[in-house]
Amino acid sequence: MSKDTHKRVGVPEGASTLPGRYYADPEILNKEIEHVFQAMWICAGREDEIPNPGDYVVRDIGTENILIIRDERGKVHAFYNVCRHRGSRLCHEPCGTVQGSIQCQYHAWTYGLDGRLSGAPHMNEVKTFDKNEWPLKDVGCEVWDGHIFINLAEERAPLLKQLGDLPERFGRFRMGDLRRGGRVNYDVAANWKLIVENYSECYHCPLIHPDLNRVTHYLSGRNDTIADFYNGGYQIIGEEYCTLTVEGRQTRSYFKGIDKEDHNRVYYYTIYPNFLLSLHPDYMMTHTLWPKGPGQTQVICEWHFEPEQMAKAEFDASDAIGFWDMTNRQDWRACEITQLGVTSKAYTPGPFSHQEDLLYVFDRFVVERLEGPPAKPRKIASVR
Amino acid sequence: MSKDTHKRVGVPEGASTLPGRYYADPEILNKEIEHVFQAMWICAGREDEIPNPGDYVVRDIGTENILIIRDERGKVHAFYNVCRHRGSRLCHEPCGTVQGSIQCQYHAWTYGLDGRLSGAPHMNEVKTFDKNEWPLKDVGCEVWDGHIFINLAEERAPLLKQLGDLPERFGRFRMGDLRRGGRVNYDVAANWKLIVENYSECYHCPLIHPDLNRVTHYLSGRNDTIADFYNGGYQIIGEEYCTLTVEGRQTRSYFKGIDKEDHNRVYYYTIYPNFLLSLHPDYMMTHTLWPKGPGQTQVICEWHFEPEQMAKAEFDASDAIGFWDMTNRQDWRACEITQLGVTSKAYTPGPFSHQEDLLYVFDRFVVERLEGPPAKPRKIASVR
Amino acid sequence: MSKDTHKRVGVPEGASTLPGRYYADPEILNKEIEHVFQAMWICAGREDEIPNPGDYVVRDIGTENILIIRDERGKVHAFYNVCRHRGSRLCHEPCGTVQGSIQCQYHAWTYGLDGRLSGAPHMNEVKTFDKNEWPLKDVGCEVWDGHIFINLAEERAPLLKQLGDLPERFGRFRMGDLRRGGRVNYDVAANWKLIVENYSECYHCPLIHPDLNRVTHYLSGRNDTIADFYNGGYQIIGEEYCTLTVEGRQTRSYFKGIDKEDHNRVYYYTIYPNFLLSLHPDYMMTHTLWPKGPGQTQVICEWHFEPEQMAKAEFDASDAIGFWDMTNRQDWRACEITQLGVTSKAYTPGPFSHQEDLLYVFDRFVVERLEGPPAKPRKIASVR
Repeated sequence: MSKDTHKRVGVPEGASTLPGRYYADPEILNKEIEHVFQAMWICAGREDEIPNPGDYVVRDIGTENILIIRDERGKVHAFYNVCRHRGSRLCHEPCGTVQGSIQCQYHAWTYGLDGRLSGAPHMNEVKTFDKNEWPLKDVGCEVWDGHIFINLAEERAPLLKQLGDLPERFGRFRMGDLRRGGRVNYDVAANWKLIVENYSECYHCPLIHPDLNRVTHYLSGRNDTIADFYNGGYQIIGEEYCTLTVEGRQTRSYFKGIDKEDHNRVYYYTIYPNFLLSLHPDYMMTHTLWPKGPGQTQVICEWHFEPEQMAKAEFDASDAIGFWDMTNRQDWRACEITQLGVTSKAYTPGPFSHQEDLLYVFDRFVVERLEGPPAKPRKIASVR
Repeated sequence: MSKDTHKRVGVPEGASTLPGRYYADPEILNKEIEHVFQAMWICAGREDEIPNPGDYVVRDIGTENILIIRDERGKVHAFYNVCRHRGSRLCHEPCGTVQGSIQCQYHAWTYGLDGRLSGAPHMNEVKTFDKNEWPLKDVGCEVWDGHIFINLAEERAPLLKQLGDLPERFGRFRMGDLRRGGRVNYDVAANWKLIVENYSECYHCPLIHPDLNRVTHYLSGRNDTIADFYNGGYQIIGEEYCTLTVEGRQTRSYFKGIDKEDHNRVYYYTIYPNFLLSLHPDYMMTHTLWPKGPGQTQVICEWHFEPEQMAKAEFDASDAIGFWDMTNRQDWRACEITQLGVTSKAYTPGPFSHQEDLLYVFDRFVVERLEGPPAKPRKIASVR
Repeated sequence: MSKDTHKRVGVPEGASTLPGRYYADPEILNKEIEHVFQAMWICAGREDEIPNPGDYVVRDIGTENILIIRDERGKVHAFYNVCRHRGSRLCHEPCGTVQGSIQCQYHAWTYGLDGRLSGAPHMNEVKTFDKNEWPLKDVGCEVWDGHIFINLAEERAPLLKQLGDLPERFGRFRMGDLRRGGRVNYDVAANWKLIVENYSECYHCPLIHPDLNRVTHYLSGRNDTIADFYNGGYQIIGEEYCTLTVEGRQTRSYFKGIDKEDHNRVYYYTIYPNFLLSLHPDYMMTHTLWPKGPGQTQVICEWHFEPEQMAKAEFDASDAIGFWDMTNRQDWRACEITQLGVTSKAYTPGPFSHQEDLLYVFDRFVVERLEGPPAKPRKIASVR
């Protein structure tokens, strides 16, 4: 777990925000899709969304549609959702279940849940055709503590190499055991980086989040860790409150495995590029970000709880969901009014305050990825 | 008429579908508009839609809007629907009737139904102006057996040169005598070639058209003819059925002029680039295709019958329309899920089965048109 | 005031309309935004819309959003509506009022009504930060007789230099004293120049404006003035009518300061690029044009009256508004059918009649601005 020394990271004097084209130019988004979203591990959801063989979800990454499906042995696979015959999309719902195989609804080409082509009518008449040569095209798919990650790069290191010390850092939260208690999808009229940047500072909290700022004062935060592929910190829950809910009161037990000092903290971690992980004493909130255009992002926000708590008759997720749904919408509005401004010629990079160190770090990450070839993982260093 | 030898055309071993850019790249569609749709005769509808002088329809071909209108002598003309003065569009409805002349609704410039400029207020004050120099700009317009064809090319051969032996091949159906009994317009979210390709094979019929496949079994088909500018074949109507309708029963007489062997056949012909001609024993179905974008096509589907049949009190077109409207929608869905897949980087050309010989032929036609200058008509050869 | 010699300006023999790309090419619109709309004074509305300190309106010019606001001393300012910190848009409504300062709704950076940065939380912790260096970015803002003009150019001459003799020409109308009695916003599916061109001739009046043409016959007009940055003329109100209203009758007194010959005239002036000023004997109508795309323009039309008239119990603006709202819609339809036609390859520049001299002059103005660097003001010459 993190060892805190209450030292801010800080930004170089004179550091400033990104130029406007980073938020509005379709070419830059295309490059981000190529150099970031399709070049590293990105979080695609939770294992417990597809508990049984044949269960699937689909995700869009730029123009690619990825099918994530569990096979009979329980293994999760990710495939391009494209038939090898005429190119038809195979699964059409955002999520669903297929029975034993994936069948194209055009000419009945049929694939096993592991992607092998098992049936192709009339193709035996074609002499040069060999079924073994036409499986579904797969992409990298690994799971960390219940979080499914996919990777569209041709060459890829194992997920753990990208995650660094995250599994160790948050192992005590036993995230793999949690189950989803709620989900809200948001269509936000802002660039995906504005949403990450918004998540990365609480400088805006006094003005736009009066309720949040009452429970966790914006200056209580500590940005304690900057690693190659993530950054984050925590905020202190005020003494008269227990967790982040509508009332600030707690109706669930603390997570079983966590430490005492976790009981009054909320951890906020940005796991690059698209995963915002928020660990409360009694629930986990996740956001995954899906760029739809330079100024348009789909955000999937979910709330996850311990199954023991969910099994109780009095269990009610609405206090956590209600609190954060309100706060989310306040944030999206801030992102959207910023999207409106950064496209102006009059917008020139503005000066960062010391509250905005993590934005500086995240912006550097993106710019370096765009400028160079896909970055190689380096040693992770906590900031002490 | 066709002499059938029940021999399939076949595709070369290893032949495969087109690369994805052919279905998604706006530049390729623009080139198709230029090299195909605006460079050869395309079917624009039926003469009986504009029976009287002044009756008109308009059609969009790429960014061009074409006015097709009948003059006082009964001749059908096609003009760019653009006033020669300030460029205003002249006729605004999809179809309609003008009284004796075509008048611009802006400054009252007035044209005869044959396109001559007959009135231009105040232009007599402009010394260098000569009315004879400012007629409507016309495009090629010829009629084959009731089907109106237009041609936007500067240099064009007569329609008959492009049609080859089609007039002879289907003369016995007396298509020019038929009258429209129904029409449905469809907006299909798929590239126009996917719609032609879908029409060109019945490999998909067992899975997506159970009703159609019951009446005409998908392996009963014969692709009997491949010519320079069309291809097609027929399918056999099962012994217990009479024609393609909801019930499979027939409520109309067979076409008067057809042969006995036509009584249990449905002919399906793709007349390049945009005309799908389906001749049943007792009715004619036509589709014309109008690209609206790389992934968007308007399809006009019409059903035509003998006037003698239509005059009967018990005449009812709904059995034919209902059957094909259902089947059309099944096809459009197949085209649309394919459009979704072929834009993926993971889509690479897939292997053709021997059921898909006509697709191969049609794809070659398009690719050759795009690569070279507009093709010159060659000798038509039936495949025996 | 104008001295009329009843001589038309005339167009050179063989002069013709602009090529179609001027109405459809996004690149040309971008260049017009840059060389015309963001390079000279444009009319942005009326002072009486923001009478009190803190009152504001916003206007879009291409991708720029401009905030026009009155400060405590009564001075009107125009700023880019963009916070200097992270670039957020500051004011979000089309018009409104702020209390004493302009505060960014993201991180509470606060600006005076004169644009100075007065508050920036936590920025005192940044050593190199100096509040005086981060005011709102302003644009030129001057007022002529109640009309607010803004100018986004870096280097700009005073407004009066662009207006030439207009203040003298129409001073007797005391436009600064008038107050708004009505407004209608129109979204017109046509290029902004088609709307100016439509305003510049009455050749179309007999056909599309039968009511207008009855009150002011289209041949009664005189195009009397062509200056560097405006042009215009007047039409004669028929003897049996008093002004342009639904009934042609007059329910208000003539403007106090005008001459007797103004009593039967309507002056129509195009003040380049976006301001159409129509002075009637008893009311002023203004149109301002806001390009939204090559084929899309927002038109703000307002009617203004003498406050003494408006104070009367029987005052009713609806006769003027109703008359012109009907006439406006007739004009927009003409512009829209022309937009549909000029994008055709078949549209080639058409011949101007002598009724269309002002179009020729306006078109030349735009083409010269696009071809060269921003034009320098020259001597204004009335056409006699």
